[in-house]
Amino acid sequence: MLKTISIIDAKNHVDEEVKIGVWLTNKRSSGKIAFLQLRDGTAFFQGVVVKNNVSEEVFTLAKEVKQEESLYVTGTIHEDQRSPFGYEIELSGIEKVGESENYPISPKKHGVDFLMDHRHLWLRSKRQFAVMKIRNEVIRATYEFFNKEGFIKIDAPILTGSAPEGTTELFHTKYFDKDAYLSQSGQLYEEAGAMAYGKVFSFGPTFRAEKSKTRRHLIEFWMIEPEMAFMHQEESLEVQEKYIAFLVQSVIDNCTYELGILERDINVLKRYTELPFPRISYDEAVEMLQKSGEFPDVEWGEDFGSPEETYLAEHFSKPVFVINYPKAIKPFYMKPHPTREDVVICADLLAPEGYGEIIGGSERATDPEFLEAQIEKAGLNKDDYQWYLDLRRYGSVPHSGFGLGLERAITWITGEEHIREAIPFPRLLNRIYP
Amino acid sequence: MLKTISIIDAKNHVDEEVKIGVWLTNKRSSGKIAFLQLRDGTAFFQGVVVKNNVSEEVFTLAKEVKQEESLYVTGTIHEDQRSPFGYEIELSGIEKVGESENYPISPKKHGVDFLMDHRHLWLRSKRQFAVMKIRNEVIRATYEFFNKEGFIKIDAPILTGSAPEGTTELFHTKYFDKDAYLSQSGQLYEEAGAMAYGKVFSFGPTFRAEKSKTRRHLIEFWMIEPEMAFMHQEESLEVQEKYIAFLVQSVIDNCTYELGILERDINVLKRYTELPFPRISYDEAVEMLQKSGEFPDVEWGEDFGSPEETYLAEHFSKPVFVINYPKAIKPFYMKPHPTREDVVICADLLAPEGYGEIIGGSERATDPEFLEAQIEKAGLNKDDYQWYLDLRRYGSVPHSGFGLGLERAITWITGEEHIREAIPFPRLLNRIYP
Ligand SMILES: [Mg+2]
Ligand SMILES: [Mg+2]
Repeated sequence: MLKTISIIDAKNHVDEEVKIGVWLTNKRSSGKIAFLQLRDGTAFFQGVVVKNNVSEEVFTLAKEVKQEESLYVTGTIHEDQRSPFGYEIELSGIEKVGESENYPISPKKHGVDFLMDHRHLWLRSKRQFAVMKIRNEVIRATYEFFNKEGFIKIDAPILTGSAPEGTTELFHTKYFDKDAYLSQSGQLYEEAGAMAYGKVFSFGPTFRAEKSKTRRHLIEFWMIEPEMAFMHQEESLEVQEKYIAFLVQSVIDNCTYELGILERDINVLKRYTELPFPRISYDEAVEMLQKSGEFPDVEWGEDFGSPEETYLAEHFSKPVFVINYPKAIKPFYMKPHPTREDVVICADLLAPEGYGEIIGGSERATDPEFLEAQIEKAGLNKDDYQWYLDLRRYGSVPHSGFGLGLERAITWITGEEHIREAIPFPRLLNRIYP
Repeated sequence: MLKTISIIDAKNHVDEEVKIGVWLTNKRSSGKIAFLQLRDGTAFFQGVVVKNNVSEEVFTLAKEVKQEESLYVTGTIHEDQRSPFGYEIELSGIEKVGESENYPISPKKHGVDFLMDHRHLWLRSKRQFAVMKIRNEVIRATYEFFNKEGFIKIDAPILTGSAPEGTTELFHTKYFDKDAYLSQSGQLYEEAGAMAYGKVFSFGPTFRAEKSKTRRHLIEFWMIEPEMAFMHQEESLEVQEKYIAFLVQSVIDNCTYELGILERDINVLKRYTELPFPRISYDEAVEMLQKSGEFPDVEWGEDFGSPEETYLAEHFSKPVFVINYPKAIKPFYMKPHPTREDVVICADLLAPEGYGEIIGGSERATDPEFLEAQIEKAGLNKDDYQWYLDLRRYGSVPHSGFGLGLERAITWITGEEHIREAIPFPRLLNRIYP
């Protein structure tokens, strides 16, 4: 019996006869030869059918096979210098497995809505394949990094009775006879985790019922939220830049084929692995924006929008930390600055090339009375936060943490235009199918 | 400046002076010596304060320090043959970081409700530490296994408009002007993933609004759902047992300290790494139950409850696959048996020691007409499943998959009584705090 292999393993079977389960992505043929473009989910390559070398039945099948029909093919692997993949298969046999009449996604251009309606099929296309493989590598590298650094994963609950940043933009559900909300962040729970296990992280879906339709927002997205006990903000920034550099390096090392498909410039990515990343203060950032002449209305005290973030990041060839934002525009739990009333100890990491904020983080306030007052000021329900205040009542320690938006990071690393490309089944304003 | 270390790294610093950020878990003292039980989230060990060797201030602090106060301690690491951890620290300095007045969880016994209300603090206790470290190892090993085996992670959406097993026991939310449900399973999406990428898996939270209060059920739990194209059920069973053995072996290899805390017998766990696992048919299982005399009412065609699963698994020293259940009690997407009308090609994996089903899986039906009829029969909304039927219309292939309940597996591996111990912040019937 022939050995069944995956396309990605072709390099280990040169001049061997093998069997592969595949789908047809495209084909062309003449009277004497047919070229079948094949995929199996691990890679794409070409199958060559030479009329004189196969039975009439096989050659007829090769000429008639339709886009996205599934097949078992047998044949011999050869090197193929002309293709970026480097190998092809000369077919001796084709066995049809599943039909495909009028596959809806043809090689011609389709509109985005049409493609999104067919996301379950669109994922089979080459660019989508490349992005999803890189997503997988970013996920894999995240676990490698945090395990290596001594973090343990503490899963925050999705269903909660309280909300870290107020109750707007929250999805609501009935939890038996109670009310519950879908988590926007696992951070508060990670803080409990850090007091128990030192260095912890969560990595799970979060939800924001935001009525905005930008290329940077998803309704449902994945976040990585590390939290570290006995750690001040400066050390946290070092963890953050080390983590980002590790992600980018892992993609460079393990996704050459996929970056090639996306035509992503590896030299640009390499810059993002050079540490440290620059740090500028919020004050300096405001000054830069004001001096630019492009943002006449920017005033100290306001949060930055996408254009401002893009402008700031363009001035650096690497991601840049903007540190110590105004207290008034940041969440209640951030640590007050020791000598300034108006700012908190925090940082956003802005990605270059127009991708904006990919990380937000801060040192956390440690004083229970201060936090209780903050919770009241923010109009939050005190009862919901008793457990959170306990973390300060019983053995409070300096601690810091941050959150990385997975899909934002992937969009940036892959160089895609729109964040909807970075997740298998995007949830967008009014899109919940498929 | 002294080197700051973690307790777990004590072995690399014997006879060195170091600094550690810690919490006090317990203490005892006489006039001349104080023994402080310390934890830092990586391990637990003892700090010894000898009155004659330290300043009066330090000794007084050592005698007065309270449970769960946070401290920076300095001192010299020594081997300590008497403790299971193997090392202790002789303290020269103690600096108080955070107070802890009347820590609610004392070493005396508390009721489960009280402890669950204080889950954010209870996680700091030794047993909970051990279980969470093993949970982390099971998660880590899962990623290692599936990456090694060539799977890529395809995240299924949590918010969906359709439901794989009917709309009972679903959490509902408004998705802008539409209705949405929290996912009970990512499987159907993984099938789309498998057609695009060959071997895929999801690993995320799933939700079941079940009004049952058993030691095996959580409302919110994490599932690992692999799906494999061009794969029949028998090969899938081999992946499943290999995966389970890998998880157990990883815990044995990397969690000796934690298994020790739980007093879990490693020899029992070792049996679970010996492959293959036995396979019995559903028919045989029914016969075993009937012959036992303990289940006089069991009839062919019924699903098994916990007592039946426990009885069956007790007859094997390893997890056992029960294969080919009646069609009528299984979901619509399972592949019909080739020669029998009444059963489908599926298997549940039952864990020994009374832990019941930890995996459910099947080969999937490939024929679009058959599936369409099944969807209708199950009373599901056909429109919601058009994308799923597309997977069969365009290049259908034999494929199989399975789902592992993370917390069930952890409960079993750790030998805990109740599944609420296996997740940091359990969501149970009427428990959504903290
Ligand atoms: Mg921002
Ligand atoms: Mg069952």
